Amino acid sequence: MKYYAKPLNKLVNELNRLPGIGGKTAQRLAFHILSMEDKDAFALADAIREAKTSMRYCSVCGNLTEEDPCSICADESRDRSVICVVESARDVVAMEKIREYRGQYHVLHGAISPMDGIGPEDINLKSLITRLQDEEVQELILATNPTIEGEATAMYIARLIKPSGIKVTRIAHGVPVGGDLEYADEVTLLKAMEGRREL
Amino acid sequence: MKYYAKPLNKLVNELNRLPGIGGKTAQRLAFHILSMEDKDAFALADAIREAKTSMRYCSVCGNLTEEDPCSICADESRDRSVICVVESARDVVAMEKIREYRGQYHVLHGAISPMDGIGPEDINLKSLITRLQDEEVQELILATNPTIEGEATAMYIARLIKPSGIKVTRIAHGVPVGGDLEYADEVTLLKAMEGRREL
Repeated sequence: MKYYAKPLNKLVNELNRLPGIGGKTAQRLAFHILSMEDKDAFALADAIREAKTSMRYCSVCGNLTEEDPCSICADESRDRSVICVVESARDVVAMEKIREYRGQYHVLHGAISPMDGIGPEDINLKSLITRLQDEEVQELILATNPTIEGEATAMYIARLIKPSGIKVTRIAHGVPVGGDLEYADEVTLLKAMEGRREL
Repeated sequence: MKYYAKPLNKLVNELNRLPGIGGKTAQRLAFHILSMEDKDAFALADAIREAKTSMRYCSVCGNLTEEDPCSICADESRDRSVICVVESARDVVAMEKIREYRGQYHVLHGAISPMDGIGPEDINLKSLITRLQDEEVQELILATNPTIEGEATAMYIARLIKPSGIKVTRIAHGVPVGGDLEYADEVTLLKAMEGRREL
């Protein structure tokens, strides 16, 4: 893209590499950044640098954190008998937003996917096993994504942990609240029927 | 959003301030940035900082540039008898992409909009008048946006310049190439009819 001056071109290219940011959006963002106040643009640059420098993974649960162990692992008021296993740190945020779950987390940083060459040893699973041996855990909630990889990961972990006597549960599959039965796919509907509960 | 650690929260907020980047997208981008290689994330931060520091407005045409005057104004091979007036530096890129226009540009940095309190003195118009007095300009192409503000700006400039004897033209309005007549609005269709040409 020789239409831009070099620094602008570089900025467009760097923005373009972000997920979901195409060429047009990258250009729009770049021009917007150039039209921003100096201090605002620098604040964005600094925020990226600072977040990247100061954020790390919690050595206990694998969640993104500024301090190690993370605030959830360090919180004495949280239930230490339940661990919710999720695929990514984003899922921890999603779970926390329901304001209902008060247990611990374990972030796998991925899911088992033989198609992509990701095996059990490539995700943050080993430290989960260690945790289960040390701590007074009574229930393991498998909240991996309802995808083929997420299901496979949940199955794998369930089979691995069950012999130890710890209760292993899987979050419910079904029609999403506010959704429309008509638009639910067959597998979801089947799961919703299978998981029906008496009122 | 107390679910995030502070640096992450700051990054999400800064990203959220960009146009078209909502809360969810900002969160997704922030987590992606944290999962990027250090050098890639720093490259993005540096690109923002560098672009913001090194890019300025050309003192002649008002285009975004690293060197003053900009590469278009400095290019001896370009036609100095035509100036294309556009609203923003982005429009210069759009025009350059057609690879057909070889004249000069003038960037207004906005359009006259009494509703928003933007008058002729608030846009980069004065320097255009000065340019027209100094240079051997024979045609002024008004390529402001086909919006109410853009039209008003074009009308204003046309009335201002015409007495000086310089040819003032406006880019054509009509149905976009590849578009569908059915979906063209009435005003566009009217303009397309008015602007019809003999084949």
